[in-house]
Amino acid sequence: MNPEDLKAVRQFVKNELGGDNAQLDALSEKPLELYDKFRQTGLANWWLPEELGGRGLGLEDSVEIVNEIAYGDAGVAFTLFISVLGTSMVQLYGSDELKARYLAPMAAGGSFCATLGSERAAGSELNKIETVAAQDGNELVVTGEKFFSTNTDFADFLIVVARAADNPDTHHAVLVPRDTPGVEIVKRWDVIGLRASHTYQVKLDNCRVPAANRLEGSGLRLLEIGLNASRILIAATAIGIARRVRDHCMTYAKSKPFRDGTLLDSPVFAQKLGQMEMQIDVMKSHCLRAARDYDKIMAGPDAGSVFARQGTLKAALTAKMFCGQAGWEVASVGSEMFGGLGYTNELPIGKLLRDIRYVSLVEGGDDVLRDLLFGRYVIPVPRRS
Amino acid sequence: MNPEDLKAVRQFVKNELGGDNAQLDALSEKPLELYDKFRQTGLANWWLPEELGGRGLGLEDSVEIVNEIAYGDAGVAFTLFISVLGTSMVQLYGSDELKARYLAPMAAGGSFCATLGSERAAGSELNKIETVAAQDGNELVVTGEKFFSTNTDFADFLIVVARAADNPDTHHAVLVPRDTPGVEIVKRWDVIGLRASHTYQVKLDNCRVPAANRLEGSGLRLLEIGLNASRILIAATAIGIARRVRDHCMTYAKSKPFRDGTLLDSPVFAQKLGQMEMQIDVMKSHCLRAARDYDKIMAGPDAGSVFARQGTLKAALTAKMFCGQAGWEVASVGSEMFGGLGYTNELPIGKLLRDIRYVSLVEGGDDVLRDLLFGRYVIPVPRRS
Amino acid sequence: MNPEDLKAVRQFVKNELGGDNAQLDALSEKPLELYDKFRQTGLANWWLPEELGGRGLGLEDSVEIVNEIAYGDAGVAFTLFISVLGTSMVQLYGSDELKARYLAPMAAGGSFCATLGSERAAGSELNKIETVAAQDGNELVVTGEKFFSTNTDFADFLIVVARAADNPDTHHAVLVPRDTPGVEIVKRWDVIGLRASHTYQVKLDNCRVPAANRLEGSGLRLLEIGLNASRILIAATAIGIARRVRDHCMTYAKSKPFRDGTLLDSPVFAQKLGQMEMQIDVMKSHCLRAARDYDKIMAGPDAGSVFARQGTLKAALTAKMFCGQAGWEVASVGSEMFGGLGYTNELPIGKLLRDIRYVSLVEGGDDVLRDLLFGRYVIPVPRRS
Amino acid sequence: MNPEDLKAVRQFVKNELGGDNAQLDALSEKPLELYDKFRQTGLANWWLPEELGGRGLGLEDSVEIVNEIAYGDAGVAFTLFISVLGTSMVQLYGSDELKARYLAPMAAGGSFCATLGSERAAGSELNKIETVAAQDGNELVVTGEKFFSTNTDFADFLIVVARAADNPDTHHAVLVPRDTPGVEIVKRWDVIGLRASHTYQVKLDNCRVPAANRLEGSGLRLLEIGLNASRILIAATAIGIARRVRDHCMTYAKSKPFRDGTLLDSPVFAQKLGQMEMQIDVMKSHCLRAARDYDKIMAGPDAGSVFARQGTLKAALTAKMFCGQAGWEVASVGSEMFGGLGYTNELPIGKLLRDIRYVSLVEGGDDVLRDLLFGRYVIPVPRRS
Repeated sequence: MNPEDLKAVRQFVKNELGGDNAQLDALSEKPLELYDKFRQTGLANWWLPEELGGRGLGLEDSVEIVNEIAYGDAGVAFTLFISVLGTSMVQLYGSDELKARYLAPMAAGGSFCATLGSERAAGSELNKIETVAAQDGNELVVTGEKFFSTNTDFADFLIVVARAADNPDTHHAVLVPRDTPGVEIVKRWDVIGLRASHTYQVKLDNCRVPAANRLEGSGLRLLEIGLNASRILIAATAIGIARRVRDHCMTYAKSKPFRDGTLLDSPVFAQKLGQMEMQIDVMKSHCLRAARDYDKIMAGPDAGSVFARQGTLKAALTAKMFCGQAGWEVASVGSEMFGGLGYTNELPIGKLLRDIRYVSLVEGGDDVLRDLLFGRYVIPVPRRS
Repeated sequence: MNPEDLKAVRQFVKNELGGDNAQLDALSEKPLELYDKFRQTGLANWWLPEELGGRGLGLEDSVEIVNEIAYGDAGVAFTLFISVLGTSMVQLYGSDELKARYLAPMAAGGSFCATLGSERAAGSELNKIETVAAQDGNELVVTGEKFFSTNTDFADFLIVVARAADNPDTHHAVLVPRDTPGVEIVKRWDVIGLRASHTYQVKLDNCRVPAANRLEGSGLRLLEIGLNASRILIAATAIGIARRVRDHCMTYAKSKPFRDGTLLDSPVFAQKLGQMEMQIDVMKSHCLRAARDYDKIMAGPDAGSVFARQGTLKAALTAKMFCGQAGWEVASVGSEMFGGLGYTNELPIGKLLRDIRYVSLVEGGDDVLRDLLFGRYVIPVPRRS
Repeated sequence: MNPEDLKAVRQFVKNELGGDNAQLDALSEKPLELYDKFRQTGLANWWLPEELGGRGLGLEDSVEIVNEIAYGDAGVAFTLFISVLGTSMVQLYGSDELKARYLAPMAAGGSFCATLGSERAAGSELNKIETVAAQDGNELVVTGEKFFSTNTDFADFLIVVARAADNPDTHHAVLVPRDTPGVEIVKRWDVIGLRASHTYQVKLDNCRVPAANRLEGSGLRLLEIGLNASRILIAATAIGIARRVRDHCMTYAKSKPFRDGTLLDSPVFAQKLGQMEMQIDVMKSHCLRAARDYDKIMAGPDAGSVFARQGTLKAALTAKMFCGQAGWEVASVGSEMFGGLGYTNELPIGKLLRDIRYVSLVEGGDDVLRDLLFGRYVIPVPRRS
Repeated sequence: MNPEDLKAVRQFVKNELGGDNAQLDALSEKPLELYDKFRQTGLANWWLPEELGGRGLGLEDSVEIVNEIAYGDAGVAFTLFISVLGTSMVQLYGSDELKARYLAPMAAGGSFCATLGSERAAGSELNKIETVAAQDGNELVVTGEKFFSTNTDFADFLIVVARAADNPDTHHAVLVPRDTPGVEIVKRWDVIGLRASHTYQVKLDNCRVPAANRLEGSGLRLLEIGLNASRILIAATAIGIARRVRDHCMTYAKSKPFRDGTLLDSPVFAQKLGQMEMQIDVMKSHCLRAARDYDKIMAGPDAGSVFARQGTLKAALTAKMFCGQAGWEVASVGSEMFGGLGYTNELPIGKLLRDIRYVSLVEGGDDVLRDLLFGRYVIPVPRRS
């Protein structure tokens, strides 16, 4: 990555997310204007390939970018990277025409896409998906209700995972343009953190799209593959939030009188910060390693088929699990550092605690991930670490 | 305690705190009407002694009552019991006249009092208090600014801890009626949880009260003694919140489809709930033990002098520490039980997590309490457990 | 309990278990002579009822006694109290003749009994027991192999849980005198801690006993009931070991130079010891509460039938779980307090770490206990804490 | 690294450390013969540079090698790599003559060296070292007593950190051949784990060596630099031990009957193993990253001066801290997996628990490392992660 890029990201964070930015925690109704500001850096959807007009940055670079933005606000970071879940599916398993028609404009315009996987009764068990895609001549008709999807309302298109009407054991991933008749926003979720992001419950009522909008391969497998990038970047938000917690503790300690000096002189404080720094350092090492594993496959000539064989990457699972757990520890310890003041909204720690909680909750809780890890990477002896 | 009393409390919780009570989390501006409803149970300020017209319930009973109310809402519980911090100081170290004039009306009318200890630069280090009480003839003139005090705006009176103007090493605890000229509410704190309670920053500008309003003994010591009851009851709120988390998990699990049955059939779920139940059971044992230690002293003929010698009770420290830590674990695990839904405000878990956080933050963080415990109860060999 | 009794116990601990008692960790082959010394205190089998010539001390007193002995050595404590598992089954469900013949001599002579429950394939799943008891005229013939039983070799009698030959769904608890032909010690286990105790693998080869040696009721249920007392006392050993860890840290810190003073002046050390003290205080509260729950039932006129209905006591489960977990934390933190020296056998910490590990491993690991707790005390709403 | 090398290491582990190798835990008196066997692989002291006749493998390769050997036995691994602490000091700060005279034979013969830093009163506070090096003509005379040093008895030479006789604020690192008159082994430590290794208390009584045996630079700084490699490799032993714990759990679970199948089918078991696998994966990522940080400096033209400026590497601190903590969790959870059997020496888990404990205890406990991390890498803002 060009060092100028990281500088631009940091500048964006400083200008737009610094200071007393209460709207970031306000669940404000409109896509925030600051996404326009990010577009002006030229880095919107930075991971899209150069051949489609994108910046072509790899996941290792993405970890750095997301880490920086999440330091400012994790909800903004999530909004800006989560399209990767859908675009990577299109990039790997979509036709050239779909890529040209849908990804190229996202590279040019910095717009968004959404992925619609989970349903009310199909959260951790995606095989229970009931949304149906029925072939009707040259068209696919998609009908169902999706529980959680981010950016949907202002996305260019949606990637919908649906059961095949003619074969209940098969699932498709279908690209549905946002303006397709029948796409209805049921509601925006009132989330406890990440409140600058927009997550929706969505209804699909006989949405007709060309049959060619179907991506190649099993919809469930494709979703699993798409989650590799997004899980690693979710993990990366934990780094940014944890760094923010640490820095906030340091800033506070510098001016907090304690005994004859400041809190900075307290050996007990030093111990807590030393432990945090260790955790942050390890989070970072591991996210970068996970990203390199991903980039290595993506750099190969047959990324699509390698991923199709492998499905969920081990390091994507372990990165999200670890960063969620370590991040929660950092924020929990951090929240005890400010006495009663830490229980008020005068300090950002309450928000940071709410924000970081999402890492262990979305795109598979730890129970689900541990189960996957056990079945895929512990049972088969050669796949163990 | 009369079994009818506990029944009345439960009825109050069910009627007033059950259901979808969004105002409890809304930081609503007025003292909530539901405190009137609680008054109708006849249990308001239940701990005030019978000779002053109160119900005379001990701290062991109080743990049960607070546990029940906190199950409904911890902010309401805190509002209803925190006056004990001030009243116990008056009861133990105030003149008969003060008790008759100020405690008796609280017993009769179910009104509130507030305690003003902490200051901006005197949070964990109360010896840094800068509020001053100056003798002026038969009056004391109190001036200063207090950081966190609960119920102050609508209290009958405030117990203010202040440095003696004529002896900077001495502190007084002074009863200042709320309507004394010079008592000014600076602001209400915007707290991250317990949002049904009202905590204020308060200014005292030359507040004149009779010199007889000074309680007998060192103000810092008296505060420490007053905190015995309130710390144990803060610990007890953690029991109520943790029970609510557990019950909420059980209710959810009953209807959450999981594999071929419901989440209730999951052995992994059973493990988590078994661990929670253990933690709750231990929290309860220990709070009740702490309360019995307290009640035993209070039942003696010379409670005031016993407490003056002993200061902070060991079990009050360990109860708040333990329940804060175990409660945080219960709520953290609980918050991972609901998948993405647990990250929304459709479920109460986000609020419960914010609410329970206060247990480890107010009236001394764990660092401060561990330090006290070490100095008072580990260094002196015979006081070790 | 007579204060003299506790003093006698402390004297025994000081005289026999103090100092550099390497044999306590040596897996020495003979029942240690120090059990004779304990007998001289008159407290051997202190829980046996007065009507059988015993001291009749309750479980609350037993917690204190075991706490004291385990402070000296947990293996010695375990040896001295574990007979309660068998004697309580005989006391509650044996005939008067059995009590007179087998318990009275234990009260008089301070001898031991053993309980034989677990088998190789029936550890956490006792319903898989394959030892068989077959009726043959007026006799029962017991045959099988038992995996872990303590004190067996030098016990007066064994309580054997066996499947009924004529009804595989029924289990009996049968009193088998140690000198019955066919009782064979297969081996003594080489345990990692508690090495002053003696635990054996035992074979029962057509052991013939009078049919009247069968205790009344289901063998599995009786075993569960017997475990109530022993699980609470296992928990109590964790208190003693944890106190020993704490005191050892304090002794070390007093003479360990650190910066300009000793380790005792280190605020970081103070934090760790404060946390330990809290944990020890809570462990103690909870064991005592569990013991009171038990004593309350035992004091009733129909203890046997109350226990038969209730089976495993909630507080017995939560006490063993909590003390095992908290004790492990205390010992883990403790073991990091001595630098490299803590990695040598010059200090007792290595032994204490190995000793305390047993609390979470024997008589049901935490998985098993959490499961029991969930099924018995969380699912049924009124039994929740 | 040549793939054949790793294969040779694995073969060594399988042949020499597999099976029921009780002597590895026996504190046997003689340097074990198996070190000769390792020499036969041609990999002894694999990190020594090629120009001195060594294999010249970097630290990243070393992490893999140590991980493999520690899987077999951590004490053997420690013995085989700990010479790196001394050799890296000589390599970076010794004269060419010293390197030729002392490192080349180690490369050729696979022999050992030892580093003597800590003293009784100078464990975590090395500035309290009292061993003195006095210049006497062309010689240095070294006198003092060293607390913990490994391999000393059978080492070729010792690197001794000593205070300068003529300047108490200066420390030297001096190469003292093992056969120098005055080098006396006081005793071998009876360690709780890693019992295949040999750690000694050593006395230095007027040991005379050429003044040219002094390494260039401050002895304390050089020690800190030497610890970079050894701390990372200590961390790597935790990976090997944790993998062994995991594999042992899997092997046990495959044959352990549980309900209608084996323990392998238990969802609760799967959760625990999934968590372990995550921890192992992160441990590995982070050790490799730390090793790359080290290798990058070593590959530079001025490694000595870069290290002299930097001292302790951040990632060396965080690797040892993290792997010690995560490894302890893995082994603690592992030790609860086998019921009562896990409390016996029939299974290796007791030994693995004792072995892994050393990671957090030697070469700086976590308190010391957190303190260093805080002072060096949190206080200076640009050095934060």
